[in-house]
Amino acid sequence: MAYRETERGKARKEKTRQQILQATAELVDASGFRLVQMAQIAERAGIAAGTLYRYFASKEALFADYFRRATEQEVRQVAAALQEPGQSSERVEAGLRVFARRALLKPRTAWALIAEPVDPAVDEQRLRYRQRYARLFEQVISFGIDHGELPHQDARLTSTAMVGALAEALVGPLAEPPAQNETTIDHIIAFCLAGLTRKEYPQ
Amino acid sequence: MAYRETERGKARKEKTRQQILQATAELVDASGFRLVQMAQIAERAGIAAGTLYRYFASKEALFADYFRRATEQEVRQVAAALQEPGQSSERVEAGLRVFARRALLKPRTAWALIAEPVDPAVDEQRLRYRQRYARLFEQVISFGIDHGELPHQDARLTSTAMVGALAEALVGPLAEPPAQNETTIDHIIAFCLAGLTRKEYPQ
Repeated sequence: MAYRETERGKARKEKTRQQILQATAELVDASGFRLVQMAQIAERAGIAAGTLYRYFASKEALFADYFRRATEQEVRQVAAALQEPGQSSERVEAGLRVFARRALLKPRTAWALIAEPVDPAVDEQRLRYRQRYARLFEQVISFGIDHGELPHQDARLTSTAMVGALAEALVGPLAEPPAQNETTIDHIIAFCLAGLTRKEYPQ
Repeated sequence: MAYRETERGKARKEKTRQQILQATAELVDASGFRLVQMAQIAERAGIAAGTLYRYFASKEALFADYFRRATEQEVRQVAAALQEPGQSSERVEAGLRVFARRALLKPRTAWALIAEPVDPAVDEQRLRYRQRYARLFEQVISFGIDHGELPHQDARLTSTAMVGALAEALVGPLAEPPAQNETTIDHIIAFCLAGLTRKEYPQ
């Protein structure tokens, strides 16, 4: 009996935790990290502020957890696109396109995850997040070079340049709300692929 | 007589201000913004901490002033390179190369100016700084398109993608200390120029 109550208690706690994270996601998508207050999150999640603090000791802790989960999901989507069958340049294109489409679908969330000034605890996670993206692209580019599908080039430099071009043009800080999503995406991908498939790189 | 003393006082004040800014530049070049303390700056400038606070009321105010001057100098150098005679793609290449060489000459300063997490007052200035770079490149690209020197493309998107590629690959957050500066620079410029001179962009 005590055991079953514990199980039920656990499920209820997990449900509340999900409500909190969902409320956080919605508020970040509306205004980024900086303007979101714990009181708002509690209200949107339908719980008391005191309850919220029993789940997350501080806003920093909550944001760090939200950030970890949200970026994990983004990385998984891009990784899946990069694993689809095809030539290396097609796989890179598919990965860039998934990243871009998801970013433009939720532009404020993308900005919060990629570019918004945040506190150092989240910032450290962000560095790892950007690195994971770049490394995923780097692997496919290295594979392409080794198998004669792509011209010889420094796979790491190309991958970081691509992630930089994509992030800056789509998400910020310099990005502007694009009028035509798919045209914008096509342009940026064309820019990146021109660099990727360029015949001669300096040795 | 009173007038001459005021002039002399002004000159002395300006000299002290320059010493403070020079000390700030040296310390930022050694460790970025976050680790630098006002006490260190005063010591390096050869003045008392109390004197320092008479010139700059806070670290934020000092950093904002340093940032404004330092980025102004960087923008001027890149703007000058972009104005040199030549085809548009050569001018863009010259601008990218000046940016890249200066960044790799003082990598920590470049990181502090471009990518280091900083307080919001500096961060707002940084946004304007990145925008000015992108707009400078955009002007040359637009000129090139109008004069048939460059293929038709969205000049704004290409310029932000180039600034993003360059900043990410050279400065960070993803950048790594490059072993061979000129080879690294050549690679990134080749990547950007491939995008810039690409024959067909989606319409």
